[in-house]
Amino acid sequence: MSNDTFSFEIIESSKQYSNARLGLLRTPHGVIETPAFIFCATKANIKGVTIDHVKNEGTQIILSNTYHLMLQPTGKVIREAGGLHAFTGWDGPMLTDSGGFQIFSLGHGSVSSEIKSSRGSCSPDKKLSLLKIDDDGAVFRSYIDGSVIKMTPEISMQMQIDLGADMIVSFDECTPYHVSKEYTALSMRKSKEWGLRSLRYLNERGDGSQRLLAVIQGGVYEDLRLESVDFANENGFFGFAVGGSLGQTTFEMREIVSMVMEMLDRRKNVHLLGIGGIDDIFHGIRNGVDTFDCVSPTRIARHGTALVKYDDLKNGKRNINLNNGIFRGDHSPISPNCPCYTCQKFTRAYIHHLLKAKECLGGTLITIHNIHTMNRLMTEIRGGIKNDDLNRVCKEWGSE
Amino acid sequence: MSNDTFSFEIIESSKQYSNARLGLLRTPHGVIETPAFIFCATKANIKGVTIDHVKNEGTQIILSNTYHLMLQPTGKVIREAGGLHAFTGWDGPMLTDSGGFQIFSLGHGSVSSEIKSSRGSCSPDKKLSLLKIDDDGAVFRSYIDGSVIKMTPEISMQMQIDLGADMIVSFDECTPYHVSKEYTALSMRKSKEWGLRSLRYLNERGDGSQRLLAVIQGGVYEDLRLESVDFANENGFFGFAVGGSLGQTTFEMREIVSMVMEMLDRRKNVHLLGIGGIDDIFHGIRNGVDTFDCVSPTRIARHGTALVKYDDLKNGKRNINLNNGIFRGDHSPISPNCPCYTCQKFTRAYIHHLLKAKECLGGTLITIHNIHTMNRLMTEIRGGIKNDDLNRVCKEWGSE
Repeated sequence: MSNDTFSFEIIESSKQYSNARLGLLRTPHGVIETPAFIFCATKANIKGVTIDHVKNEGTQIILSNTYHLMLQPTGKVIREAGGLHAFTGWDGPMLTDSGGFQIFSLGHGSVSSEIKSSRGSCSPDKKLSLLKIDDDGAVFRSYIDGSVIKMTPEISMQMQIDLGADMIVSFDECTPYHVSKEYTALSMRKSKEWGLRSLRYLNERGDGSQRLLAVIQGGVYEDLRLESVDFANENGFFGFAVGGSLGQTTFEMREIVSMVMEMLDRRKNVHLLGIGGIDDIFHGIRNGVDTFDCVSPTRIARHGTALVKYDDLKNGKRNINLNNGIFRGDHSPISPNCPCYTCQKFTRAYIHHLLKAKECLGGTLITIHNIHTMNRLMTEIRGGIKNDDLNRVCKEWGSE
Repeated sequence: MSNDTFSFEIIESSKQYSNARLGLLRTPHGVIETPAFIFCATKANIKGVTIDHVKNEGTQIILSNTYHLMLQPTGKVIREAGGLHAFTGWDGPMLTDSGGFQIFSLGHGSVSSEIKSSRGSCSPDKKLSLLKIDDDGAVFRSYIDGSVIKMTPEISMQMQIDLGADMIVSFDECTPYHVSKEYTALSMRKSKEWGLRSLRYLNERGDGSQRLLAVIQGGVYEDLRLESVDFANENGFFGFAVGGSLGQTTFEMREIVSMVMEMLDRRKNVHLLGIGGIDDIFHGIRNGVDTFDCVSPTRIARHGTALVKYDDLKNGKRNINLNNGIFRGDHSPISPNCPCYTCQKFTRAYIHHLLKAKECLGGTLITIHNIHTMNRLMTEIRGGIKNDDLNRVCKEWGSE
């Protein structure tokens, strides 16, 4: 695999917003036009949707979660299958995370709810399936069979080599919010060490077909984020993934994202981990973020909520809940201007019926639509950057 | 709609089996090559599969159940949608049943388990949601909202006109097994009356785009079946649907099917209601049955069982249960000779993983494969009739 296969090229920067940019992210499995949305194929599939429907709606890149896959079906099974691409039938670019987020999320209660909001107040003492963290790595209990499993940077890297995604993520401790600055500092420094070990392992054992993203930690503390960024800038990572606690409120999250984005080496691509709300995407893009991921567009779809471009809906909203009885006899598509498979072929009334009848095809059809809608959002954002009218795009999607 | 749109033409009769035949069943939505399998889109969808996957696997015709659809989303909603074709996105031939089977199945306990096997011994007195049967029709309670609903031949026909399938079925009482010959006779004669009323209603109110199948009742009694057949032969139905109690054992079921098939007007097409096991299909075809339906191929798929041609599997079986741990690292397709979407793209190990991870995509992929396999079975059966070597086809599929 030639090194030229991988590159990140900034092809245009917004004049209106100095940090928004258009990029081309080249990987062995294809070129991603950025900004782009990465869809979550958590357990090696996007729930309820065949991979051809995912592809046909303009999806550029998907991600899978190392933590889930190492437990079931295991890295060995996927390596023997020829990697995630062969296993899932997805032939485009892929990303895997390090497994750290889920391991520490289980360990610390729910890091996820902490990171994204002020809900929950779980203490870091409240160990769940996480049995031990030390400088070497973490030990936890499998939710599949109760077995005790050790995870280290080397094990995470080997697992991600087995999975074979194009972009992989260095192993880190995902620091929760409700810890002291001291703990956050120690944790971030541990993640730096783990980052070096991840980089070393991949360089020694990888076949050159994968590239590593450094995770930026440091919680809500500017000096710690700076230390984490300096480390990432200086150590030859392919790109960056902004993670860890982003504070308790949306405001705080955006402050931290802005701060980190100011400090990162702007020649490299930046992924913002787990953030995918439309307003947050616009904020991230204005600050130079290149890729986003979030389970939300596909998760809300399974529960009946379809994303719709604000200007298309004309009711002051950005989504519709198709469980609502008002759609019982509504024989129009989810969105009149949407060229997706679902909108070309099915009506709100049909999908409402499927949801009421508890037919999973209802969620499947909305998922297809939401995938298209997120891809369309990113396409229009790229157009906005190119034509220097991102503000207009932002308004059309109902964002501030 | 011209009358010429509809026809049933026998294009070849087997020399080896005097009653097996190839036919062309012409409908306004396309021509069905018979023998054919009809897939159950019970509640206006084939569970978990987009209609394009259904079509791409060679499906010629699907059916939906009037009973379920009249309760939810209602005939009115589907009529306003433009009928089931527009509602579901399926543009090929369709059939709807009369609703009778489900109404009386609920009323008599489970007619279904009675008709097909000796399991269960529910008494006809044990009224469930069926409140009343008289000469006019039946009154039952909706499982959706508890409301009291009346069903008559006229209401069933109007509902089926609203649904708009090409072939529809006359309203009948589905007589259970555990009743006297007297009850079976009374019930069959009531179904004759209802058949006349169904025919009259469709002729008066239909737009000519639908044709009616007569249901053959009469339980296990030859004289009653003969009376039912005579009625059907003499009253200008487009074709026949063999229903009702087919006895307690497979042997009895086949005896009754053979007996009825001997008596029916052989110029018309015959559907065998609810029967879809491979052995039963071969038996039916040898007796001149043209179409079959059964939920089994798609239902077992959702639970992990894939149908495989006997000669392809080479282990003395005709299906594999992909939940089985032996498939964990099996990186071959479900069937090496299968050109379906699933087998071209995914392995047993991947589908096993999806089932273990409780991802509904696993059932979806097996459903796609099973649809293809049933269509392939019917294609090979048609080839066997054409080439006069149905016995070979039968052996290749592991049937006696």
